Amino acid sequence: MNRLDTWLWEALQEDLEHGDVTAECLIPREARGEAVVFGREPFVLSGVSAFERVFQLMDSSMQTACLFQDGDEIAAGAPVFRLQGNVRSILAGERTVLNILQRLCGVATLTRRMVKALEGLPCRLLDTRKTTPLWRFLEKAAVRHGGGRNHRFSLSDGILIKDNHIAAVGGVKEAVRLARQGAPHTLKVEVEVDTLGQLKDALEAGADVILLDNFTVEKLREAVALNGGRVLLEASGGVTIDTVRAIAETGVHFISCGALTHSARAIDLTMELFPSPHFSAS
Amino acid sequence: MNRLDTWLWEALQEDLEHGDVTAECLIPREARGEAVVFGREPFVLSGVSAFERVFQLMDSSMQTACLFQDGDEIAAGAPVFRLQGNVRSILAGERTVLNILQRLCGVATLTRRMVKALEGLPCRLLDTRKTTPLWRFLEKAAVRHGGGRNHRFSLSDGILIKDNHIAAVGGVKEAVRLARQGAPHTLKVEVEVDTLGQLKDALEAGADVILLDNFTVEKLREAVALNGGRVLLEASGGVTIDTVRAIAETGVHFISCGALTHSARAIDLTMELFPSPHFSAS
Amino acid sequence: MNRLDTWLWEALQEDLEHGDVTAECLIPREARGEAVVFGREPFVLSGVSAFERVFQLMDSSMQTACLFQDGDEIAAGAPVFRLQGNVRSILAGERTVLNILQRLCGVATLTRRMVKALEGLPCRLLDTRKTTPLWRFLEKAAVRHGGGRNHRFSLSDGILIKDNHIAAVGGVKEAVRLARQGAPHTLKVEVEVDTLGQLKDALEAGADVILLDNFTVEKLREAVALNGGRVLLEASGGVTIDTVRAIAETGVHFISCGALTHSARAIDLTMELFPSPHFSAS
Amino acid sequence: MNRLDTWLWEALQEDLEHGDVTAECLIPREARGEAVVFGREPFVLSGVSAFERVFQLMDSSMQTACLFQDGDEIAAGAPVFRLQGNVRSILAGERTVLNILQRLCGVATLTRRMVKALEGLPCRLLDTRKTTPLWRFLEKAAVRHGGGRNHRFSLSDGILIKDNHIAAVGGVKEAVRLARQGAPHTLKVEVEVDTLGQLKDALEAGADVILLDNFTVEKLREAVALNGGRVLLEASGGVTIDTVRAIAETGVHFISCGALTHSARAIDLTMELFPSPHFSAS
Amino acid sequence: MNRLDTWLWEALQEDLEHGDVTAECLIPREARGEAVVFGREPFVLSGVSAFERVFQLMDSSMQTACLFQDGDEIAAGAPVFRLQGNVRSILAGERTVLNILQRLCGVATLTRRMVKALEGLPCRLLDTRKTTPLWRFLEKAAVRHGGGRNHRFSLSDGILIKDNHIAAVGGVKEAVRLARQGAPHTLKVEVEVDTLGQLKDALEAGADVILLDNFTVEKLREAVALNGGRVLLEASGGVTIDTVRAIAETGVHFISCGALTHSARAIDLTMELFPSPHFSAS
Amino acid sequence: MNRLDTWLWEALQEDLEHGDVTAECLIPREARGEAVVFGREPFVLSGVSAFERVFQLMDSSMQTACLFQDGDEIAAGAPVFRLQGNVRSILAGERTVLNILQRLCGVATLTRRMVKALEGLPCRLLDTRKTTPLWRFLEKAAVRHGGGRNHRFSLSDGILIKDNHIAAVGGVKEAVRLARQGAPHTLKVEVEVDTLGQLKDALEAGADVILLDNFTVEKLREAVALNGGRVLLEASGGVTIDTVRAIAETGVHFISCGALTHSARAIDLTMELFPSPHFSAS
Repeated sequence: MNRLDTWLWEALQEDLEHGDVTAECLIPREARGEAVVFGREPFVLSGVSAFERVFQLMDSSMQTACLFQDGDEIAAGAPVFRLQGNVRSILAGERTVLNILQRLCGVATLTRRMVKALEGLPCRLLDTRKTTPLWRFLEKAAVRHGGGRNHRFSLSDGILIKDNHIAAVGGVKEAVRLARQGAPHTLKVEVEVDTLGQLKDALEAGADVILLDNFTVEKLREAVALNGGRVLLEASGGVTIDTVRAIAETGVHFISCGALTHSARAIDLTMELFPSPHFSAS
Repeated sequence: MNRLDTWLWEALQEDLEHGDVTAECLIPREARGEAVVFGREPFVLSGVSAFERVFQLMDSSMQTACLFQDGDEIAAGAPVFRLQGNVRSILAGERTVLNILQRLCGVATLTRRMVKALEGLPCRLLDTRKTTPLWRFLEKAAVRHGGGRNHRFSLSDGILIKDNHIAAVGGVKEAVRLARQGAPHTLKVEVEVDTLGQLKDALEAGADVILLDNFTVEKLREAVALNGGRVLLEASGGVTIDTVRAIAETGVHFISCGALTHSARAIDLTMELFPSPHFSAS
Repeated sequence: MNRLDTWLWEALQEDLEHGDVTAECLIPREARGEAVVFGREPFVLSGVSAFERVFQLMDSSMQTACLFQDGDEIAAGAPVFRLQGNVRSILAGERTVLNILQRLCGVATLTRRMVKALEGLPCRLLDTRKTTPLWRFLEKAAVRHGGGRNHRFSLSDGILIKDNHIAAVGGVKEAVRLARQGAPHTLKVEVEVDTLGQLKDALEAGADVILLDNFTVEKLREAVALNGGRVLLEASGGVTIDTVRAIAETGVHFISCGALTHSARAIDLTMELFPSPHFSAS
Repeated sequence: MNRLDTWLWEALQEDLEHGDVTAECLIPREARGEAVVFGREPFVLSGVSAFERVFQLMDSSMQTACLFQDGDEIAAGAPVFRLQGNVRSILAGERTVLNILQRLCGVATLTRRMVKALEGLPCRLLDTRKTTPLWRFLEKAAVRHGGGRNHRFSLSDGILIKDNHIAAVGGVKEAVRLARQGAPHTLKVEVEVDTLGQLKDALEAGADVILLDNFTVEKLREAVALNGGRVLLEASGGVTIDTVRAIAETGVHFISCGALTHSARAIDLTMELFPSPHFSAS
Repeated sequence: MNRLDTWLWEALQEDLEHGDVTAECLIPREARGEAVVFGREPFVLSGVSAFERVFQLMDSSMQTACLFQDGDEIAAGAPVFRLQGNVRSILAGERTVLNILQRLCGVATLTRRMVKALEGLPCRLLDTRKTTPLWRFLEKAAVRHGGGRNHRFSLSDGILIKDNHIAAVGGVKEAVRLARQGAPHTLKVEVEVDTLGQLKDALEAGADVILLDNFTVEKLREAVALNGGRVLLEASGGVTIDTVRAIAETGVHFISCGALTHSARAIDLTMELFPSPHFSAS
Repeated sequence: MNRLDTWLWEALQEDLEHGDVTAECLIPREARGEAVVFGREPFVLSGVSAFERVFQLMDSSMQTACLFQDGDEIAAGAPVFRLQGNVRSILAGERTVLNILQRLCGVATLTRRMVKALEGLPCRLLDTRKTTPLWRFLEKAAVRHGGGRNHRFSLSDGILIKDNHIAAVGGVKEAVRLARQGAPHTLKVEVEVDTLGQLKDALEAGADVILLDNFTVEKLREAVALNGGRVLLEASGGVTIDTVRAIAETGVHFISCGALTHSARAIDLTMELFPSPHFSAS
């Protein structure tokens, strides 16, 4: 049982506990039917394998089909998934799978909107570690399906010196020096700066990547000039669909945005069931 | 290890994997400091015990204090939590705990706004099963902290006959009849209806609670009149901060709203670290 | 891996630990054979899926067949299950599966005897939460296979106010009032009473279901009269095969009985192995 | 978290699921009280550490006291355990802990009765592997608390050649020969025989222990004579409180009895709660 | 999911964490290829099922073939395993499976060398409990693949009285007496002795097996003479490829050697990948 | 329960299964004593926290003291750990903790020897991913205790293009190009090369780190010259205590060595128990 399966199984258990008392009263154990899932608004798809595995885990005889791929743009009302099998199994998984998809598609859809706003510019849109706890691997995939790129996955796979680190060691220069000395030789050293002064320190100390936190567009332009193409620059803070293009046009290499994963609105998805005509045991 | 501990531990592992490589380079193993958590906007608090347990789980020598209780309304900038202990432990838990709190406080804050809109009316605000998978027990608590009430927790602890069930058995009356016959004698029978015709069927069939789905305010008024106080009525669909009071004024007993848990915006929270002056091993 | 699989796997591990040292000495790794399971006394069957899954989990090449269904009445000596496959796998699962079946069939058989004693009466036989810890979902299914119905599954899916609650809040009326106020709107309020006086209080306070605990048959008759058909009545205490019909004839709607799950005698089951003639590797 | 804790935690979860909805309506979060557990019939105690750990796991501030030790004989009505602490915690653990104790005390009590029937004889009473799945370590301890001894714990820690093994390899002699050759040198070889002829074969083949299955008392006497003190003899089958002494008087060294663990009747235990006078938050 | 699967899955997770970032950059998701595993030195094979399961767990569409059996002697350079399937899956499992095989084959190879040194003698080579924690079931199997036999698996399945036990109870005789009295009747009593005096005590007290710890070859000869064939003798301490035959020639029945499992050198194994010619998505 | 605790608990279970049958026969339940752990040879210490936690997990009343720190050089015979507490608990953990320590100290000791061979040179010794599966976090810590540094922890936290990747994409240049394009911007790009020609390609393509695999000392010197200080160079293959200094003297920045973790010999450690004089219950 791989990571996704374990995750989905826990999600199913949360909603099923000791069983679906409504369906057990109403639906014959062997009743069969079909169902389709569609959106009531347009969206970018993410979560295809979650959908398929949820129903496989519940009932290995379920037939599932996905008519699109992760990353596709789907029109309102278009059938995205089809299901064929035991009606009780379909109903038992319905809410869980919609709860998963509505969130992942929400993240992918918001990401796609921002990426489109950057069209024609070399700047890349990044996510952050501001993800929903227990959902990081899924939300980071949804960002990719939306066209964004992933920043580091966890505290283990990248050096990023932040304000609290700098406060702790006493300055940008000392922080970068310590990181260069102690970091695994396979990792670059990234440091967050709040001012142009700190930016100069970071450049002098030999940082590989510099995160410009809450810089105005004007300050970003100065920062890009100051850098003169030496290191990679990442802008963060105040990134919205309205500001993202102006930020990118300053010439920074990356823009990172926490809202992609922590505040995307859920997509309105629904499942419609078509019981088989005679609704009898197979 | 109870359910919350297990949940928090998985959340910590997701961000920590094999350790915090930045802090291991920069922060001496024994360095101590203090930190405070505050919001950059006003919010309703939820997640006090999660905060305290996260740091206990990481480092049992950590001192934590919460200056408020779940459900309290907090001003922007007011310190909510204080931490005192090992700096590496503080930094290792920072992102995870903020990711948890920003979501739970978001749910509590949105719920509170809606509950206030109902002030003076007997109608109660309910959540739904449209929660974030793996977060249900936390989000349902956040709804209570915001002043809302919980609908059923899972498929196991309530009978709710929905459109797909009615389609499967052929009609409201038959569905309610089967549920009354087969349901555990400790559960009421709730049924979702889309029209006044179905409402009449549900009343005749002896439903205990009736969910009026996507009724206009006018239709809701007719439904309340038709019911004449016989059974409990719940309205659902199209519930926003702008519509919620008008819906309640129709006289329904409950309003349920999925957006409370699936689309609440994250609260902007931050943690500020104050390293101890000499920053030395204790 | 669903709940049953996980449960069965733990049960197998308990008996297998690091392997079956006897079979490893005596039985060639590839030896194949057949086996049948039968009872040495008549019984009601429960546990068909447990049987099939145990052997599937151990050895996916095992062929299993069940000649009956859960709930069937089986004569002594009648073959119930057939197995065909690897002899070591058959022997490794033998004791575990018999230990499971002897208990579940014991519960189903005792339940069936009591249900037959109620023949022709509208009263329903219920189980309780006095189940064997870790076995509840299986024992509650066995009660259904025996013809009984299930009371609430856990503390989460029903309101049942018992003597200790009443002691804590100071009286039946106050207890029922608090429950009606605070309970989820999908749950009925059931209260346990010890006297006719408490019964009156419960009726006045608006309980939905009343459990008459340790009432004599005569008192039960008075209680039924007092109720006058207003709410559901459940009798409990002193329920045996000898008393159950008299209790039901008082007119209560339900009788609940803890002995169904905590004191059913194990059914005497056995497995007989027929090694393949040449007993050689396949 | 050791094995017992994990086991108890799963047992608690089974009854608690997402919480105790009754207590949450009725009992203030901070209410405190005392409770005692006693039997409504005399019994032999088993399960002291389970009792204490269940309440520790739920609420580490709970005070528990046990007034007896495992193995003690307890009079009806005598208080066995005392609890002091949060009322919700007491009520949340009540059913689970009583379900555990009623079964373990049942096993210990039945064992004690049989052991007393053997008083003055050198013969020892043994349990079997016919235990309740997932309960073996607890039930085997209960047998010891009752004064019995344990047979092998699992398939891994003893060689016991049974009828199905003999059928598979073609005879007692061949089976014992293979076991002596292949078994770990730390294990004795025990073989089950159905006839005196098989007994002779087993003695000749060099078995260390011989299990006489379903022998009449008369045949057991012959077997003891035939053995002439060479190897250990164990009798099994048809062992009840009425037959156990006669079996022992034949001179066998051990009697094993499956009913000790699979068919002991539950002891009738109860918990009585005394809420603190003012029933207020501590 | 059986024990091996769970173990392998944890091993895979340890190396994979949140994915293989190198392969995700370089290898198209659908690229297919073949790979072979071979040694750069001769070795005895152990770990066939681990190899097959690792790749099945990662990717159920992977084709695996093993050209040998556990216990076979393999020449340097000979292909042992073949793989056909998704290139990313092959690379994701490569290091984990080689890390497993290099250790297990190391144990089997060292065991085989020692067993060959005993050729023609009745003495058997045993392992010990000095295994790599979490690897015992695999390393004990590797010892068998090498031609050795297993001593007890754990503290639960054999009585072995060691120096610390003797110190605790005050002497060999008392220790053996207590063990004979209290041990399950299915277990032999083995005792470790350091001197010929202790050996005499052990024989008198009725030990079934005696472990001669750190005896010189000369002392072993005296011990064998003293025993006169009465009980089983096991020699331990100072066992190397150079000494093992001389120890065996003293006439002891068993030699046990911790180095088999704690200090076997890893075998130098490698995997070579052959991408499919067109290396395109299937 | 953190990662180390879970790991240790599984290790304890592996050796304890259903209990220590020897100690249960011989040692009174309440007997107390002291024990010390020491080596029979000099070694570098690693595993202090594992030692302390193992005994805490088994018995929270155990007193443990460590007289040294991880990384200290310990003389043969010097007491390293002291234990005071229940004798059964001491004996139950003895083998598991020694099995853990003997391996970790083995790794730390071998690493220290190699690090000393590099004294005075700027070159750093690195481990690899050739660790014992399920032991990586412990073995990587042991390497640090020995004075080495860690290469990447897993496939997730570093880009390392190896021979099989190069074969798959068709050449060093293309591989480096793809990695630079697709890799997270926080990771450097390291590539393994077998020849000076590939080294030139790697330098041209813009690799950040280059691993020189199985280069002779002479070729390493040429590679260092060719590089001219541009990128970090790592040497691997054929690294032993005899060759490591010569390799370092070529001027490479890092030497990585798999044998540190896969083939370190276990250190010979022992535990000596001193039962309390009266050996009675506390």
